[in-house]
Amino acid sequence: MLITNIAELTTNVTRDGDRCGTIADAAVLVEGTRIAWVGAAADAPASDAEVVDAGGRAVIPGFVDSHSHLVFGGDRADEFAARMAGQPYAAGGIRRTVAATREASDDLLRRRLAGFVAECRAQGTTTLEIKTGYGLTVHDEARLTRLAAEVTPEVTYLGAHVVPAEYADRREAYVDLVVGEMLRACAPHARWIDVFCETGAFTAAESRRILAAGIEHGLVPRMHGNQLGPGDGVRIAVEFGAASVDHCTYLTDDDVAALAGSATVATLLPGVEFSTRHPYPDARRLIDAGVTVAIASDCNPGSSFTSSMPLMIALAVREMRMTVPEAVWAATAGGAAALRRDDVGVIAPGKRADLVLLDAPTRTHLAYRPGVPLIDRVWKDGVSV
Amino acid sequence: MLITNIAELTTNVTRDGDRCGTIADAAVLVEGTRIAWVGAAADAPASDAEVVDAGGRAVIPGFVDSHSHLVFGGDRADEFAARMAGQPYAAGGIRRTVAATREASDDLLRRRLAGFVAECRAQGTTTLEIKTGYGLTVHDEARLTRLAAEVTPEVTYLGAHVVPAEYADRREAYVDLVVGEMLRACAPHARWIDVFCETGAFTAAESRRILAAGIEHGLVPRMHGNQLGPGDGVRIAVEFGAASVDHCTYLTDDDVAALAGSATVATLLPGVEFSTRHPYPDARRLIDAGVTVAIASDCNPGSSFTSSMPLMIALAVREMRMTVPEAVWAATAGGAAALRRDDVGVIAPGKRADLVLLDAPTRTHLAYRPGVPLIDRVWKDGVSV
Repeated sequence: MLITNIAELTTNVTRDGDRCGTIADAAVLVEGTRIAWVGAAADAPASDAEVVDAGGRAVIPGFVDSHSHLVFGGDRADEFAARMAGQPYAAGGIRRTVAATREASDDLLRRRLAGFVAECRAQGTTTLEIKTGYGLTVHDEARLTRLAAEVTPEVTYLGAHVVPAEYADRREAYVDLVVGEMLRACAPHARWIDVFCETGAFTAAESRRILAAGIEHGLVPRMHGNQLGPGDGVRIAVEFGAASVDHCTYLTDDDVAALAGSATVATLLPGVEFSTRHPYPDARRLIDAGVTVAIASDCNPGSSFTSSMPLMIALAVREMRMTVPEAVWAATAGGAAALRRDDVGVIAPGKRADLVLLDAPTRTHLAYRPGVPLIDRVWKDGVSV
Repeated sequence: MLITNIAELTTNVTRDGDRCGTIADAAVLVEGTRIAWVGAAADAPASDAEVVDAGGRAVIPGFVDSHSHLVFGGDRADEFAARMAGQPYAAGGIRRTVAATREASDDLLRRRLAGFVAECRAQGTTTLEIKTGYGLTVHDEARLTRLAAEVTPEVTYLGAHVVPAEYADRREAYVDLVVGEMLRACAPHARWIDVFCETGAFTAAESRRILAAGIEHGLVPRMHGNQLGPGDGVRIAVEFGAASVDHCTYLTDDDVAALAGSATVATLLPGVEFSTRHPYPDARRLIDAGVTVAIASDCNPGSSFTSSMPLMIALAVREMRMTVPEAVWAATAGGAAALRRDDVGVIAPGKRADLVLLDAPTRTHLAYRPGVPLIDRVWKDGVSV
């Protein structure tokens, strides 16, 4: 397949100070599941491939949504409405979704998950991380891990999402479970270990213990940290060489310096601040300090029930003062960095043919036209989805 | 057609203090272009009508977007990007779109307009007001009015959008044109007369003269006012019995009291504040004072290039502290009030069958799931679009 007549191609192959590696009047040749050639349309190699006319519109890499929680039962629309009417967000709301998830059958969870994955695809997301964390028993965390693994290789074991109600008075026993039997049941189906290091969730000591156990079982660490107030999340993430620390709303200068000197990505989740009315993270401070920034949806029924990466870009620009190129990069190459993937998030020979054709002449429209469905076509591994 | 198995039906027929007139487990019978019956699904009349199973999801009236500017050439993506990087919004940017619109052929404008109308329909908008205002010559305003009238009966003549560059030194001559030859050329194709009463646009005296002339030619007044600072817009709108005064970002207590004691709707346009980083209007102050509030997109290439009424609802809830029922009402029945229409914005026998089936169990999801395309099916005048 040769996609040609692309007015603006975002390759994310940095050149001449343009991080997005923009090519005007471009073409992309896809062979099988991979990209074979990228360049000016006028220079496209002779080929008998099917020609797709982009119609003078923009093409970007498929979005890499590196943070979601999509295996769950029920929703919390009433809690959302109450919060918008003035009630504060509390992490404890997670327990309601845990109860609904435990009650849901595998089939129901699988059907709902398929619906969410289709919704993500239709909005241009071609790589999707999915966390467990609404089971919180050995049996339920293991089935959430298995269900997530049916739809993505980027599965994160998050038994340490919150201490479940039945362990409220014996949290150490719960952490024992998370690093013991639950971890052994989940690790075979997961790539990542995650912990919500926050007041009301897990302490610094517990977080260290959980990440260390995950690493021992072959999982790679990532973190929820510094969402609701200052804390130890960033420090511990960097200490453990985590691929990413997610939220990063409350950071000290030391946190920013630690991130800048590390290979840990700061993943910002502006959908959470939109849906909880919390202050947005300071993306400029991070970018200006040299930190690698990703943006993701955090799609979950409590604090951010949106799967829309285009809206994340619009919020990153409007609310976090990222430029459009920074925001588009963060939603594609940034997400890939947060998942330590070098085969996605970039349009270059040899990479996966994960591509999005926008119904717009430029990627700027993703922020300039908020809320408007601008995703015209999506290819994953070279196949139109 | 009988639409049944509706988990939550928003009728906007107020009862028992519920302005949205919500019916659970509902059905709607459509005959031809009109609604024939509304009630509990269990009570639906026997009928051989085609049955549409809503699948336990929510149905709302089609959105009434009472403020848009959709006949124009070019776009201003670069200006948007510059503004997001710190440059302030100035009304003068309108002149760039005027130049591009004058250059565009009827055919090009018609094709683009058709694209925007399709985009609105796909997002659930079934009634759409469209303003002129990017022609600003007799010839160009007349053709914009004619083009708009091809797609909607709600056409607004807005020759008084801004004083065009060529009249910068003789604004009185431009107002003479607006109330004279230009008005005579446009009035036959328009229903409404509008003026942008604002520092940098038109003065109070000019605004009064323009509205009065429009009324003389059979047009009904509406206003742009109080967008960029305090001003005379609201006062003049109420004085002229305008159907609506739009923006209402900067209001005095007297303005609010005047609106509360009038039949003039306050139309809030939160897409503008989103895309210009201005402070949002104080919807609560207006609603609590008893003012009728509508929300609309103001879709235009300068200050709000979104046609998404679902996003307007999400912004109304997140940023203007409207409740979800208030925001959904404002985007449907409120818009109808702002257009003095009693045949749309409500689901009741005899009204137009303009209906939206959401891919969600409740209208709350329009705010709870920002950015996610939740519009599953749209009927306009009983026809699936």
